[in-house]
Amino acid sequence: MKIEDLDTPCILVDRRIAEANLARAQAYADEHRLPLRPHIKTHKLPLFAHRQIELGAIGITCQKIGEAEVMADAGITDIFIPYNILGRAKLQRLRVLHDRITLSVTADSETTVAGYGGYFADAGHPLPVLVECDTGAGRCGVQSQQEAVALARSIASRPGLRFDGLMTYPPRGQLAKVNEWLETAKAELARAGLEARRISSGGSPEFYSAAEVTAATEHRPGTYIYSDRMQVEHGLGSLSDCALTVLATVVSRPAPDRAVLDAGSKSLAADRCSAPGHGHIVEYPEAVVASLSEEHGVVDLSKCVRKPEVGERVRVIPNHVCVVSNLFDVVHISQDGETAEAVKVAARGRVR
Amino acid sequence: MKIEDLDTPCILVDRRIAEANLARAQAYADEHRLPLRPHIKTHKLPLFAHRQIELGAIGITCQKIGEAEVMADAGITDIFIPYNILGRAKLQRLRVLHDRITLSVTADSETTVAGYGGYFADAGHPLPVLVECDTGAGRCGVQSQQEAVALARSIASRPGLRFDGLMTYPPRGQLAKVNEWLETAKAELARAGLEARRISSGGSPEFYSAAEVTAATEHRPGTYIYSDRMQVEHGLGSLSDCALTVLATVVSRPAPDRAVLDAGSKSLAADRCSAPGHGHIVEYPEAVVASLSEEHGVVDLSKCVRKPEVGERVRVIPNHVCVVSNLFDVVHISQDGETAEAVKVAARGRVR
Repeated sequence: MKIEDLDTPCILVDRRIAEANLARAQAYADEHRLPLRPHIKTHKLPLFAHRQIELGAIGITCQKIGEAEVMADAGITDIFIPYNILGRAKLQRLRVLHDRITLSVTADSETTVAGYGGYFADAGHPLPVLVECDTGAGRCGVQSQQEAVALARSIASRPGLRFDGLMTYPPRGQLAKVNEWLETAKAELARAGLEARRISSGGSPEFYSAAEVTAATEHRPGTYIYSDRMQVEHGLGSLSDCALTVLATVVSRPAPDRAVLDAGSKSLAADRCSAPGHGHIVEYPEAVVASLSEEHGVVDLSKCVRKPEVGERVRVIPNHVCVVSNLFDVVHISQDGETAEAVKVAARGRVR
Repeated sequence: MKIEDLDTPCILVDRRIAEANLARAQAYADEHRLPLRPHIKTHKLPLFAHRQIELGAIGITCQKIGEAEVMADAGITDIFIPYNILGRAKLQRLRVLHDRITLSVTADSETTVAGYGGYFADAGHPLPVLVECDTGAGRCGVQSQQEAVALARSIASRPGLRFDGLMTYPPRGQLAKVNEWLETAKAELARAGLEARRISSGGSPEFYSAAEVTAATEHRPGTYIYSDRMQVEHGLGSLSDCALTVLATVVSRPAPDRAVLDAGSKSLAADRCSAPGHGHIVEYPEAVVASLSEEHGVVDLSKCVRKPEVGERVRVIPNHVCVVSNLFDVVHISQDGETAEAVKVAARGRVR
């Protein structure tokens, strides 16, 4: 379909930019001998998961079982779910998935480990479990290396589970500290007779410093494929490296300095970054998407010399691309900037 | 299904609370002889659209054609789309819809009116068009009564269109000013020989003052059915009137004052209100959902005496319920607080 014939709002992915982002990242990873295990939360598309593997990734990362099921159905055979998976419904699905593909998970508590133990005791091959470590990001994860060792021991002691190593989502700007944390944990595990054969780190903003975490045996970048305003703000490339835009139409020009787009918080999401407004309008870089209601984006044109007309179409680089992907049933992927192919966002809404 | 068996995160709607919200609003409307035309953006469910009409609503409001198509398919016969509808694809769908149901739309520019005119010139019955008026909210809408008259004249002059009246989304705390704006416009239209037979106002936060806009012939409340933290903050009822919660599981208790939920910005959305955090946890009212990543909600428990355990389930009242509805394929509706029925969110993602 011609891009000019796409109805708005819709997602447009420039495949050439996405490919350049993937190739650049894989080249860095290859140079530093750092295996990649990309997080598919950003695109939720089997197409790009396969492409990431084709380029050299050792497998993929999913945050939810539902995403992993979609990717397994699409033929992906090695999936890491770095999440505490709890409860009968999920553990039953996890067991089924484990029988189909090479699966690994994480835990940061005895409760989570006991859950895995209960459902995998009779598994034909063990479930690899990594201990999630809070190296400063303040989300999940054991708080000390001692806790990591204790939990690793518990995993190793349970039939059907295998202690495989450590996982962390590092805080920004602290990679040296993160590495030290992980090296210490690895050494303490070794002293306890436990081998952390896999140490998984992640994040896109500081991807091109990821090799500084020398303890890591793999890295899980997510947003790097599309990038967004937040990533650019955190130092990953520039706005011209953003592959995904929301194509929108100016539906109103009620006042000289105001335009209204047909994209609101149900298309652009309300996530903020420190750059002003709710997205960057490519054609009008001085414009500010000042406020969103659900289906309207109100644009402040006061700094624009040239101003859009009613009916004009613009492309908006979102603040946070991963949540935008999740708002649309379909993305339109363009190879040439003129035509685009509609692709179903297969793992959209797979929140469980 | 028993609520205790629902997997998380998921949406739980307490039907008794929703029914009470609907009944209370309809009683106010009846008392003040103010016809309601509820906005279905909040629930996106044919079930509740039918219920709203059963209780006395004169029709419904949809923001996008896609929502209206879903509702028409479900048997709703009177739909208002208070939006500037532009472009061939949408105007063709609008024309098809117009042949099926009683449809009305808005415009705030000559461009929009010309679009309607082009596609409805040969319509068997005219398309009712209301002029959207900016009475202070600063979104779409003509800026003055003079502009309203000029646009009404243009609508009335075009074969296939009928000037039907005025539409506004009023700013909060300014109902007297809004009413004055509309009364003046109505009088100026009358002087020009144009009758504003329909004047449509909207909004939930000040719903119980809606009758103060005496010029209005109908009101479009949306969020009132479920309510949320934002509505409560703006004066609509209390937290116990919030019918929709996100059921979530505590997946981690990494530190004494921290819990992590399996609901992040892909379940709760990042919309903020002035109340602290990203939602209100019913069982732990002192807890603060301090930050969201996509699939994690980090909870600050420092003000809680009692604290949840890993695996415990909690209900979260979202900041903005309308965007949360749009994140889930299914809602679970409970009549008794113990069991719930899964209902597909039929108009979810209908962004075009």
